[in-house]
Amino acid sequence: MTPSAEPQPYPRRQWWMAAYSHEVTRALFGTTVLGEKIVLYRTEAGSVVALSGLCPHRMFPLDLSRVVGDTVQCGYHGFRFDPTGRCVEVPSQPEPSPAVLKSYPVIEQGGAVWLWTGEPELADPKRLPDLGAMGLGQAGWGVEHHPRSLLKGRYTLLIDNLLDLSHASFLHEHTIPKAEAVARVPHELIATEQSLNLRRLGCGIPPNPFFKLLFPAHEGSVDQSFDAEYLCPALIRTGGTLYDSASGQPLGTLNFIHAITPETPTSVHYFVMTARNFRTDDPAITALNLKMGQAIQPQDTLAIEAIEAVLSSALPRPVEVSVKADVGAIQVRRRLEAQIRAEAASLAR
Amino acid sequence: MTPSAEPQPYPRRQWWMAAYSHEVTRALFGTTVLGEKIVLYRTEAGSVVALSGLCPHRMFPLDLSRVVGDTVQCGYHGFRFDPTGRCVEVPSQPEPSPAVLKSYPVIEQGGAVWLWTGEPELADPKRLPDLGAMGLGQAGWGVEHHPRSLLKGRYTLLIDNLLDLSHASFLHEHTIPKAEAVARVPHELIATEQSLNLRRLGCGIPPNPFFKLLFPAHEGSVDQSFDAEYLCPALIRTGGTLYDSASGQPLGTLNFIHAITPETPTSVHYFVMTARNFRTDDPAITALNLKMGQAIQPQDTLAIEAIEAVLSSALPRPVEVSVKADVGAIQVRRRLEAQIRAEAASLAR
Amino acid sequence: MTPSAEPQPYPRRQWWMAAYSHEVTRALFGTTVLGEKIVLYRTEAGSVVALSGLCPHRMFPLDLSRVVGDTVQCGYHGFRFDPTGRCVEVPSQPEPSPAVLKSYPVIEQGGAVWLWTGEPELADPKRLPDLGAMGLGQAGWGVEHHPRSLLKGRYTLLIDNLLDLSHASFLHEHTIPKAEAVARVPHELIATEQSLNLRRLGCGIPPNPFFKLLFPAHEGSVDQSFDAEYLCPALIRTGGTLYDSASGQPLGTLNFIHAITPETPTSVHYFVMTARNFRTDDPAITALNLKMGQAIQPQDTLAIEAIEAVLSSALPRPVEVSVKADVGAIQVRRRLEAQIRAEAASLAR
Repeated sequence: MTPSAEPQPYPRRQWWMAAYSHEVTRALFGTTVLGEKIVLYRTEAGSVVALSGLCPHRMFPLDLSRVVGDTVQCGYHGFRFDPTGRCVEVPSQPEPSPAVLKSYPVIEQGGAVWLWTGEPELADPKRLPDLGAMGLGQAGWGVEHHPRSLLKGRYTLLIDNLLDLSHASFLHEHTIPKAEAVARVPHELIATEQSLNLRRLGCGIPPNPFFKLLFPAHEGSVDQSFDAEYLCPALIRTGGTLYDSASGQPLGTLNFIHAITPETPTSVHYFVMTARNFRTDDPAITALNLKMGQAIQPQDTLAIEAIEAVLSSALPRPVEVSVKADVGAIQVRRRLEAQIRAEAASLAR
Repeated sequence: MTPSAEPQPYPRRQWWMAAYSHEVTRALFGTTVLGEKIVLYRTEAGSVVALSGLCPHRMFPLDLSRVVGDTVQCGYHGFRFDPTGRCVEVPSQPEPSPAVLKSYPVIEQGGAVWLWTGEPELADPKRLPDLGAMGLGQAGWGVEHHPRSLLKGRYTLLIDNLLDLSHASFLHEHTIPKAEAVARVPHELIATEQSLNLRRLGCGIPPNPFFKLLFPAHEGSVDQSFDAEYLCPALIRTGGTLYDSASGQPLGTLNFIHAITPETPTSVHYFVMTARNFRTDDPAITALNLKMGQAIQPQDTLAIEAIEAVLSSALPRPVEVSVKADVGAIQVRRRLEAQIRAEAASLAR
Repeated sequence: MTPSAEPQPYPRRQWWMAAYSHEVTRALFGTTVLGEKIVLYRTEAGSVVALSGLCPHRMFPLDLSRVVGDTVQCGYHGFRFDPTGRCVEVPSQPEPSPAVLKSYPVIEQGGAVWLWTGEPELADPKRLPDLGAMGLGQAGWGVEHHPRSLLKGRYTLLIDNLLDLSHASFLHEHTIPKAEAVARVPHELIATEQSLNLRRLGCGIPPNPFFKLLFPAHEGSVDQSFDAEYLCPALIRTGGTLYDSASGQPLGTLNFIHAITPETPTSVHYFVMTARNFRTDDPAITALNLKMGQAIQPQDTLAIEAIEAVLSSALPRPVEVSVKADVGAIQVRRRLEAQIRAEAASLAR
């Protein structure tokens, strides 16, 4: 399953979602991103700091340490590091050590902290996809932050999963409304330089209980446009818009925003956010979205972890076979491989 | 401990017990045999199907899937495969895919499903040892199916165990009736082209409580013939016959049939069946046999798993020393190695 | 982190603490030392025997076996071995086998059993540091045997830990009395051919509740000498002596004796004993010492296991940085490496 060959299974010149904003406080928040241990915290002024999570003195994990003022103090021998990663105190001697913690560029946007894992000088906020366009951090939208999960599977399995939504008819058969139809709806592929969108269109869909739940006042049939849009290796949007069939007027948009952050070569952090531009204050819709996420995610986790167990084992497996519905996932694999190769080539120069 | 060197620690041109007949139903039964994931099920007509347990589309394990009519439908994207393994449906497109699932020859005999892991064209039911001769699926015999177990140890440790029954005096000291005597009873080795039998003979054994349990009406001493018979890597029979010492007439035979099916290079499925040709309808004897199995098996499991832990570790261990009682086990190792080498040679041609 | 490179991460010509004396009885006591499985037991006459813990017949672990008279009887097929490791019985045949169990030189001293892992002919009791000088097995001293623990970390991490006591101010901040001061007390390094001692001296320390607990009758300030003394890879002493500041007379000595026994390349047995030459019969001091150990050990275990997890993982880590306080630990690493290299060179000759 490509791209998964070591030593570099992921692109590094990339913003990745490291945490929800609310997870980063004045206490240390430890995580692992692209195989690197990291601690996140806020300074007294409230800005987010991301530093290497290993003290270079004796490799003590800093998530077992503490914040003192704006510095991190190692819990083993008390070395202190400032928000840039510079050592400012070694308790057993008068002067600090030249030791430094690697420091990571971060942006806080759309209710999340985004971490840059490439060379710091290349960290450009413009390389983060337009979160506002999806409804994150935007007036007129209601957003739910679903609980984070950590899947024991390579991140590319999650990309594969999201870009072939025909799985909804089987894996989520009893969970997603009208799931049985998804696999058979034709889709078109809309490719731009940045993104790849698999769009399914349905016209003149008769009213059904799920649409009624979302738009109780609406009468008559609806048209639906449903996307699976790859924005970058870190971000996929699924979801779409319902229209009144008669007038062609949009009724509303519901997006599922999937942030995908590799933890190690064979595990991935998975954050789901839902964003809608209708009935934004209605707690019933919020509850519905969270409940749907709660039901769907364990099913995807089961599939991805079961496949990872196969890929990680030394046991034999058949040669992979693809079909037309995989066109999006396969183009994404090629883009991802090209991105990884381009980075490797640029580093080799 | 030979033969255990990778890449091929087991012969493949072999029938192996995959499941008890009662385990295979209209639902999918997943197992792993010789390192290959397999699903078993019955068609509407009741015949047993054995197919590869991995969907070649995205490696989803088919034991998490379902039977539809006579086909298997993958639980991820709904690909369907017929009992020969041919893909008959891809839901997202009109035509099926050329993908196939590997299909395994099976026979159902003696209350069990036997799977052929070699080239299908070589699958010959005659290569399965004569189960009826042991009492399986035979009129006039009573049979117990002991619960299956999965041991974390290479299958050759189980063969070693069964072919040196002197261990009964120590490992099963308090479990097997008159166990303390076993190690000291002399045995003879009866070799045929197919099998190797280590036979222990006891003459004029005075009545004891265990014999009384089996044959309450019998008076006087008995002669006993007790075998440990290797029939093939998949099957060992232990047990034997009691005779009236005075007349030489057989009182009855009790066999322990051990089906040994490698799961992976370091784990093994273990099925025990008991078969007897006396008091076949007596539930007290059935209960006695099951209870004895329930007590003995955990002791063998403990020994085999403890030894596997030693063999699998990187830690140093002494050079193996053998004694006369190992003659059967060592001849079996040689036959097994010869069988594996012959297969490799024939595949290389 | 040196020295940790395989294949030989530890010196073998060394006495290591295998067990407390009270742990070795007429039953088999199994342990693993330097990667070798070992069983310990006492003969009828009470002397300690240490033999390889694997039966060379079929690698059955002898800690699952039993003592018969002065011999070990394997729990699988009943092979018996005398205290020198010679096979004296094979139950299935009249004569014993030439199989032998490796036998280890042992000494029982200071309430513990010490095992020699090098060539037996080099086992010299004089190479065991002077336990009496530390208060073990000595009249006029009270000793506590803290519960043994097994840390999932390479033994050198425990040596590093004990030789940089500045960690007390952070890792044991709320546990060790006056911990906050430790990191800032200057120390001197006293090196002899055998040992390396990092001594911290404090003069004119005003009375505090902890000193009052130990020496309730004493008035006025005290001087303190506190050591972290490396005696050999198997033994480190921390602790020291309090003096009356006015007269310079010693009030008493309290030693923490740390026995460090590698189990495998990445795990270590850890035994702590406290020894004092004042109020030796006072159960309140005994309780205090045990309680302090009970609080401190889990903190050190946490640090060592967290660092081992980093070192054992394939994930990237920063280059190690050392400071002045590491001078002792670094000299010990050099001695240890030199010891290992000298052994390898002598074996290669």
